[in-house]
Amino acid sequence: MKYCSQCAAPVTWRVPPDDNRERYVCTDCEAVHYQNPRIVTGCLPVWQDRVLLCLRGIAPRKGYWTLPAGYLENGETIADGAARETMEEANARVQGLELYTVFSLPHISQAYMFFRAELTDPEFSCGAESLDVRLFHEHEIPWDELAFPVITQSLQFYFADRESRQFPVRSREIHVQRRGPLK
Amino acid sequence: MKYCSQCAAPVTWRVPPDDNRERYVCTDCEAVHYQNPRIVTGCLPVWQDRVLLCLRGIAPRKGYWTLPAGYLENGETIADGAARETMEEANARVQGLELYTVFSLPHISQAYMFFRAELTDPEFSCGAESLDVRLFHEHEIPWDELAFPVITQSLQFYFADRESRQFPVRSREIHVQRRGPLK
Repeated sequence: MKYCSQCAAPVTWRVPPDDNRERYVCTDCEAVHYQNPRIVTGCLPVWQDRVLLCLRGIAPRKGYWTLPAGYLENGETIADGAARETMEEANARVQGLELYTVFSLPHISQAYMFFRAELTDPEFSCGAESLDVRLFHEHEIPWDELAFPVITQSLQFYFADRESRQFPVRSREIHVQRRGPLK
Repeated sequence: MKYCSQCAAPVTWRVPPDDNRERYVCTDCEAVHYQNPRIVTGCLPVWQDRVLLCLRGIAPRKGYWTLPAGYLENGETIADGAARETMEEANARVQGLELYTVFSLPHISQAYMFFRAELTDPEFSCGAESLDVRLFHEHEIPWDELAFPVITQSLQFYFADRESRQFPVRSREIHVQRRGPLK
């Protein structure tokens, strides 16, 4: 951020009055421009005893498998955002969404939230950002080709919990020291 | 938003290329300025059989009781943000945070998340945004003077769940047709 979105004057990085951390503050109108973490919302879509995964067609982690997920939009419930992303990435319809995993990723200022969901039918296909979409039995999951730790952990929780048919919400933090940009 | 924060040219409200909803887009450098929901994180702080509430000293809902909560900051875990807000609003230290309630509020593009937490000691006092801070037994809760529906629902869940000593995560949506600004 270089310029004030209210008045176009340059911004500076300083602690505003009555605050205790640095923000972008306008050098002219003194507007404070807050920046906050984003929510990534997605589904763990299930059809009978298989789980739907998408092969990422875009960076980061192009060519790795993921659960359908993306940024929550203004005006949307978290569950509606998860269903929308499932439609956008896999052209798949889901129902019976139940919140299942919640992850804090402070190093990238994101919160990830996944919902268990049932596919309403076994019809799906690639969305614009996917190279492939498939249903996987547990023994077919490509554990070494999953895109992100939140995907691996959500799938591990799911297959473990499926044994007992109990799916409590799982809340975890993921702390990463980044050594370079994800390709 | 009136001006591009990258180049100071005016922005327009339109659907960017390869997107499906309107965003602020720069008329010169074509930067897309995304706006996304914010996370409000807080605690339901418990000391023995009492719950800590803060009397709001600022709008909206000045003079109504609330659980300590506020916007999650970049670089913070959701639980760390909840503990920080409890310190800022009530000068209170908490431990053993467990995610408890998750609310979608699409009409104001917010997600609220509360953690059950134990006060480490019964020492607390008013932070800058509070007029009073007190511990309440269940029969003392000022149900008609609570600040927001998310506060009422979180307390209702808590006292009901306390009977069984089981506190599953509760995920809910709150849909409101706003008729005017909150005072």
